[in-house]
Amino acid sequence: MAKINDNYLKLPGSYLFSEIARRVAAYSASRPEAKLIRLGIGDVTQPLPPAVIAAMHDAVEEMSTAAGFHGYGPERGYAFLRDAIAANEYAARGADISADEIFISDGAKSDCGNIGDIFSLDNRVAVCDPVYPVYVDTNAMAGRAGDYDSSAGRWTKLVYMPCVAEHGFMPQLPAETVDLIYLCFPNNPTGAAATCTQLKMWVEYANETGAVILFDSAYEAYITDPDIPHSIFEIEGADTCAIEFRSFSKTAGFTGTRCAYTVVPKALVRDGTSLNALWNRRQGTKFNGAPYIIQRGAAAVYSPEGKAQVRQTIAYYLNNAKVIRQGLSDVGLTVFGGENAPYIWAKTPDNMPSWEFFDLLLQKANVVTTPGAGFGPSGEGYIRLTAFGDANATKQAIERIRASI
Amino acid sequence: MAKINDNYLKLPGSYLFSEIARRVAAYSASRPEAKLIRLGIGDVTQPLPPAVIAAMHDAVEEMSTAAGFHGYGPERGYAFLRDAIAANEYAARGADISADEIFISDGAKSDCGNIGDIFSLDNRVAVCDPVYPVYVDTNAMAGRAGDYDSSAGRWTKLVYMPCVAEHGFMPQLPAETVDLIYLCFPNNPTGAAATCTQLKMWVEYANETGAVILFDSAYEAYITDPDIPHSIFEIEGADTCAIEFRSFSKTAGFTGTRCAYTVVPKALVRDGTSLNALWNRRQGTKFNGAPYIIQRGAAAVYSPEGKAQVRQTIAYYLNNAKVIRQGLSDVGLTVFGGENAPYIWAKTPDNMPSWEFFDLLLQKANVVTTPGAGFGPSGEGYIRLTAFGDANATKQAIERIRASI
Repeated sequence: MAKINDNYLKLPGSYLFSEIARRVAAYSASRPEAKLIRLGIGDVTQPLPPAVIAAMHDAVEEMSTAAGFHGYGPERGYAFLRDAIAANEYAARGADISADEIFISDGAKSDCGNIGDIFSLDNRVAVCDPVYPVYVDTNAMAGRAGDYDSSAGRWTKLVYMPCVAEHGFMPQLPAETVDLIYLCFPNNPTGAAATCTQLKMWVEYANETGAVILFDSAYEAYITDPDIPHSIFEIEGADTCAIEFRSFSKTAGFTGTRCAYTVVPKALVRDGTSLNALWNRRQGTKFNGAPYIIQRGAAAVYSPEGKAQVRQTIAYYLNNAKVIRQGLSDVGLTVFGGENAPYIWAKTPDNMPSWEFFDLLLQKANVVTTPGAGFGPSGEGYIRLTAFGDANATKQAIERIRASI
Repeated sequence: MAKINDNYLKLPGSYLFSEIARRVAAYSASRPEAKLIRLGIGDVTQPLPPAVIAAMHDAVEEMSTAAGFHGYGPERGYAFLRDAIAANEYAARGADISADEIFISDGAKSDCGNIGDIFSLDNRVAVCDPVYPVYVDTNAMAGRAGDYDSSAGRWTKLVYMPCVAEHGFMPQLPAETVDLIYLCFPNNPTGAAATCTQLKMWVEYANETGAVILFDSAYEAYITDPDIPHSIFEIEGADTCAIEFRSFSKTAGFTGTRCAYTVVPKALVRDGTSLNALWNRRQGTKFNGAPYIIQRGAAAVYSPEGKAQVRQTIAYYLNNAKVIRQGLSDVGLTVFGGENAPYIWAKTPDNMPSWEFFDLLLQKANVVTTPGAGFGPSGEGYIRLTAFGDANATKQAIERIRASI
């Protein structure tokens, strides 16, 4: 008799965004005339950069001839893309990352989820609170999280690092020893960005204890402050303690086009074993590479035109962030983030519970947000808004919020 | 201190195709003038069908405008593709599979590897011998395979089902009870195709014992015999005991374009839990859908033009298979497969070990094959050739083989 992985049965209810979708669908069904504006889920809205479009057309055309056809590519990705990433994302920032430390994939969500494959099930895992649910759920599914305590909203075996306003939403070093540490900066959901000094504390901790930092920098393209690092590998010593996840999703509008990469330095060794070799084995055995056409599109992000176009779209979204920040401040809300991140983290009025404020904004302003409590107990009392909308729709959403609170 | 998944350390040497690549590279370095013909790895060579090219150009163009832009898609794939698959691959063959039992992915290798996530680690796993290495390696990585016994070429906890010539390369029911059974028909590497009667035996066994069949039908498009089933769901009762893996790779030349799907029937329940719900949760948490552009390309395979073009390319490859079968028979080799499958499984002359015959063909004929022993102990004494080459190159390869043995 086949037995299921019963860790799945411990997962509470539905995934945050499914619950939001359910509430939105129920509201829309009852008020079909309502024109909703979605500032909830972190999905982009602007078209792909023209340089990416042109490169993908060319690649599609190549696939139409025997001479230009590309079959199985390297599981870790084409050198043309890994080389471009190494040069533009790392060497250009003084981080010594080579192309064979970069693994191209179909998405940072896949990589953040699959990275657990190369680690033992008895590692102690630390996560921020609030947190992107994928880090938690994938560890729960593997059996590293223990049991879910629904009254606390926490898993018994995870170590939670509260990120609260009084510490600028930065996690503090955990009191107990941990083995795997998920960090995400610029942060989803709080929009907080970590300084070099702050990251240095984590790198030193990890190198001292042998922990591995799983660093998600999917939002680095939104950093505007020149002193904020874009990669953990800008911090000395990170190559012996960190893995970094990056994505073209938010950088170049690839949420539906799917391309990302993970950096596993060769100097990163645990139990006498190279994690780069382990990840290479994992990807070589359970993955067959990202599509050639898509990798050509991603490489075009690094052409001169591609770079200029990407900068323009990011400026567009960052302007939305400014509009949201300003508008919410004007109605008396306390806002965080949105300056080095596409996310705005707003305190609810009068300590209203976040799902209640979510429902209020949905029903009164017809604006979809994300309740902070969905990201963990320390997210209670906040909502997350995203800057990825259409500029006019974003302005209108803020007008409606002004009018309704 | 972070601990690695030490199951990885048990994996023997390198993956089969990496070892082949190593030997080919070494030979090419020593004889740079040699013009190799590759009939080894199962990669296709013919361009994508024009209908697929046109659909992908259209989809790329859509992504260039805000109105046509597609961000995150449904994790399980767009309905337009799942509906087309349900209608054309299942309903058309009398198999009752609905669109919400179909999960679109980036590849059958990913799905075959990831499916283990939803099963307990203490399931007993049965595999054919010879076997596609991914089934074995992914279970070894998860810890279900025990230890590798290098003298036997087998894992201590896996149950091997020898597929030998005297039984038409069909596995026999295992003597001991097993929980998960990997079957692949038409078979890689032997090219054997299972009849309805043969599959019925497995479906009955699984329904009686509660085992789950993991059925890989990546090569179904090569079936020419109208009595051979294309899907395990053509067999009554399979919906309560089987999961099926399918791919556009070999059907429509998508090896470098990446699109596949997995069918998990809603009637498939173990431990009181729907495996469809578990796989949906797995994919929803660790995957973000296949690219919109690629799914549009895959859907075009089901247009009238797409179907005709795909049939033409498959006929082209099947003609290669015929050329290989005929040519090897003419020089006195015993050949199997190649009639309902793109693989030809040839007995080595005078019981020569398969790596030795591989080296002989590499060095004397400059033809790259795959040694049968690489697929398991029962593959010893065979080589696998693939029909996916260019027609002229395939003819030339056979001429060279004729001249060298």
